[in-house]
Amino acid sequence: MKAGIVTIGDEILLGQIIDTNAVWLSKELANLGLDVSFILTVPDTKEDIERSIDMAFTQAEIVIMTGGLGPTKDDVTKKTIADYYKIPLEFDDILFQKISKYFDFRQIPVTELHENQCLMPKKCTQLENNMGTAPGMLFKNDKGWLISLPGVPYEMEWIFKNSFLPLLRSSYPQLGNIYFRTIRTAGMGETSIADKINDIAEEIPEGISLAYLPSLGHVKLRLTSKNNISQIPVVNDYVDKISARLGNLVYGYDDISLEETLKRDFVSKGLSLSTAESCTGGNLAHHLTSIAGSSSFFMGGLVTYSYQLKNQLLKVKNETLVEYGAVSENTVLEMLEGLLDSLKTDVGIAISGIAGPGGGTPTKPVGTIWLAWGNRNIQKTKKLQLTKDRLKNIQYTTNYAMNSLRLFLTELELD
Amino acid sequence: MKAGIVTIGDEILLGQIIDTNAVWLSKELANLGLDVSFILTVPDTKEDIERSIDMAFTQAEIVIMTGGLGPTKDDVTKKTIADYYKIPLEFDDILFQKISKYFDFRQIPVTELHENQCLMPKKCTQLENNMGTAPGMLFKNDKGWLISLPGVPYEMEWIFKNSFLPLLRSSYPQLGNIYFRTIRTAGMGETSIADKINDIAEEIPEGISLAYLPSLGHVKLRLTSKNNISQIPVVNDYVDKISARLGNLVYGYDDISLEETLKRDFVSKGLSLSTAESCTGGNLAHHLTSIAGSSSFFMGGLVTYSYQLKNQLLKVKNETLVEYGAVSENTVLEMLEGLLDSLKTDVGIAISGIAGPGGGTPTKPVGTIWLAWGNRNIQKTKKLQLTKDRLKNIQYTTNYAMNSLRLFLTELELD
Repeated sequence: MKAGIVTIGDEILLGQIIDTNAVWLSKELANLGLDVSFILTVPDTKEDIERSIDMAFTQAEIVIMTGGLGPTKDDVTKKTIADYYKIPLEFDDILFQKISKYFDFRQIPVTELHENQCLMPKKCTQLENNMGTAPGMLFKNDKGWLISLPGVPYEMEWIFKNSFLPLLRSSYPQLGNIYFRTIRTAGMGETSIADKINDIAEEIPEGISLAYLPSLGHVKLRLTSKNNISQIPVVNDYVDKISARLGNLVYGYDDISLEETLKRDFVSKGLSLSTAESCTGGNLAHHLTSIAGSSSFFMGGLVTYSYQLKNQLLKVKNETLVEYGAVSENTVLEMLEGLLDSLKTDVGIAISGIAGPGGGTPTKPVGTIWLAWGNRNIQKTKKLQLTKDRLKNIQYTTNYAMNSLRLFLTELELD
Repeated sequence: MKAGIVTIGDEILLGQIIDTNAVWLSKELANLGLDVSFILTVPDTKEDIERSIDMAFTQAEIVIMTGGLGPTKDDVTKKTIADYYKIPLEFDDILFQKISKYFDFRQIPVTELHENQCLMPKKCTQLENNMGTAPGMLFKNDKGWLISLPGVPYEMEWIFKNSFLPLLRSSYPQLGNIYFRTIRTAGMGETSIADKINDIAEEIPEGISLAYLPSLGHVKLRLTSKNNISQIPVVNDYVDKISARLGNLVYGYDDISLEETLKRDFVSKGLSLSTAESCTGGNLAHHLTSIAGSSSFFMGGLVTYSYQLKNQLLKVKNETLVEYGAVSENTVLEMLEGLLDSLKTDVGIAISGIAGPGGGTPTKPVGTIWLAWGNRNIQKTKKLQLTKDRLKNIQYTTNYAMNSLRLFLTELELD
C-alpha cells in the first residue's frame, strides 16, 4: 500500500527550518511496510493545499498532512480540507469543554481564536491530541484516507502513534514490517565497490533492493525487503555474501559508526590511543571524543599547528622541518615517534598537510596530506592527494585516519 | 518567478537521511528572491521522476532536481530526463578525459561504470563539477529550466554556486532584488533579545521583515526587504539601530562567522592563541582551524582527556585534581596557567567538564563545564550548567569559548 506525506509551511520552503516531521513520518510509515511514494512541501495557501490533495491521491491511498491546524490566521488547513470535501464546519461543544479545561488549568483566558479551534468538520473522525488543543482529523474518501495532523512535532507524533495507528492497524491488519540491513564500509569508492560485488548484486532476487549511500571516504550499502517476511533470511544471506567479498572494507553494520567501531576495538584489545594533528586541527580528536565513553581508550592529543610546537612538543627535528618540510613523510614519522614518547600510549597517529585553500607549492599542491600511524614496533605512512576544499580535506583525512587505525588493529590481530 | 525543488532518493522517503539539499537549496533560492512553490521528494524510478517533471512545471519555471547522477545502477535520473525530452545520450570524450585524469591522479583504475558516466544528453548545458565526476545538467524547455544536480551535498552546492548561478543571473538579471542584512549575536537567547529590541522591532515599516534564527549560543537577526530597492537605506538604518541597542552581543554581520571574527581580532592585535581542551575533545581547535589562515594566530592546542595528561602536559597538580576534581575552577585555572607556560602564547583557554551522557555526580551533574581564559595578567572563569546531550554540550561550550575569547579581546582594548 502506498502512502504520501504533505507538509505545509512557508518556513520550510524558505529553508528556515528542517522538515523533521517528514523525516519522522517517513521512517514510521516505512517501518509499517508502507511505500512512501512522495514527500511534498507546499505553502500554506488554500490553492496550494487543494492542489496537493489532488496530486496526493493520484500517488497514494494513505496521505498524511501536517501543519496549519493552529488557531492563528495563517493556519488554513482545516477550512481548506472541509471545503474541498464540501463538509460544513460546526461548533464542537465537547472539544470546547476540553480546550477550556486545558486553558483554565494553565490560567490562560479562552479567546475567540480558541473558539475558532472548536469549529470542526462534521463528517470526519477526530484524532485525540493529548499534547495540545488541536485534534487531528481523519477523512475517509473513495480514494483513501486523508489524515491532517498539527505541525508541532510532539503533538503530531503523539496523535500519530496513539490516535491514528490503532485505527490504521484495525482497518489494514495485513500491514507488515519492512526489513533492512546496512553494511558500512570505508576505504573504497562507490563505483569500485559496485564493481567488486557486481555479480552478487545482479543475482539479488526480486523484492530485495540494494542501494549505495556514499559520503566522504565511506560507502553504506543497504539491502531492503518490503512486506515479505520470508525474505529476511535471504537479505541476511546477501549481507554475509557481500561482506565476505568486501572483507576488511566492512567496518560495521546498521547503526554502528566508525567511531564506535574504533572504541570497541581499542577497548577490547586494552590499547590506548593518542593523536598529533596539524592540518586536521583537532577534528580527529573531536570525532574520537564525540561518542560516550571515549575516555576508555583515547588519552588525548596534540594540535601542533606551528613549526615551533611540532619541535617543542613532538621533538620533530628542525633539520627535518627545513629539509623535508612540515608536510612530509619524515615529519609525520617524527611526530608519531614524539607523540608515543610523550603521551606514552600504545598506538598513535600523526597528520600534517596543506588543508587549503592557500599554502600550496608546485611540488606540494593544496590537498597534499601525510599521515603516519602505528605503535613502537610498526609504523605505517600514507600520502593523500585531495582537493582544494579545506573542510572536505579535513573531514576526508579524519575519516581516512580513523579507518587506518581500525585496519592497523585488525592487522595486529593477525600477527 | 517561481522555483521548485525535486529531490530523488529512497533514503529520504525511508526517513534514513535528512534532506539537507532541499534545505540548502530553498534558502539559496529564497535569497535570490525566487518563490519556492514546492519541495517534492520521489523514489528513484523512471516513472516517479517523469511524473515529478510533469508536476513541477505546472508550479514553477525553475526546477532544481538533485540526486541520481552517480554511476551505479540505482542512479537513473540522467537517462530518465534524456528520454523524457527525447534527447539521445552520447559518449563525451572531453568528460572522459577529465574523469580519467581525476582517477589517474588518485591511482584508481577507470572502469566501465565510469565510462557510463560519460554518456551525456546531447542537447543540454553541462554544469561543471569541480568536486566530483558527475557534471550537473541544464535543460531549457518551453516551460522553463530543469537543472539536474548530483545528490552529494558538497558537489551539488559547488555546481549550484559556480556553474549554475552565473547562467541564471545572466538570463534573469532582474533576480536578486531581495535585500537582506544579518546581525550576528552571541551570548543571549532569542526571547531576551526580542525583549531588548521590542520597541525598535515594532516600528519597522511594512515591507521589511525581521526574523530570529537561533542556534546553540547564537542568534542571527535577519532584516529582509523584497523587491524594493528604495528600502535598502531603511534596512541599513535598522541594522544600525538594533546593533547599537545590542552592543557587544553583536559579533559580526552577514556571512562573517565567529571564527572569522576571532581571527580578524587576534591578527589585528598581533596576539597568539592556544587551547587546552578536555570535554570538548578538540572541537574548539577544530573550529578555530576550520577557516583559512588560522595559523596566523592559532599556534596549537592540547587535548588532555586523561588526568595523567592534565598533570604531565599542563602541570595541573595532583592535589588539585584529587581535592577539587578535574571539573573545577581550580583545575581549569591551572590548566590555563600550564598552557600559557608551555605553549607561550599571548592568550589561552582551558575547558574541562562532563559532556555526558554518563559520568555525572550529585554535586557535578552531567553538563557541568568549567572554562578559564585569559593572558598572563587577567584570567576569567565561567561554570556552565548544560544538558544531558553530549554533542549539544560540546558544541555549545565551543561557541561559548569562542565568544568569551572575542569579548576578552574587546575588553583588552578598553584598558
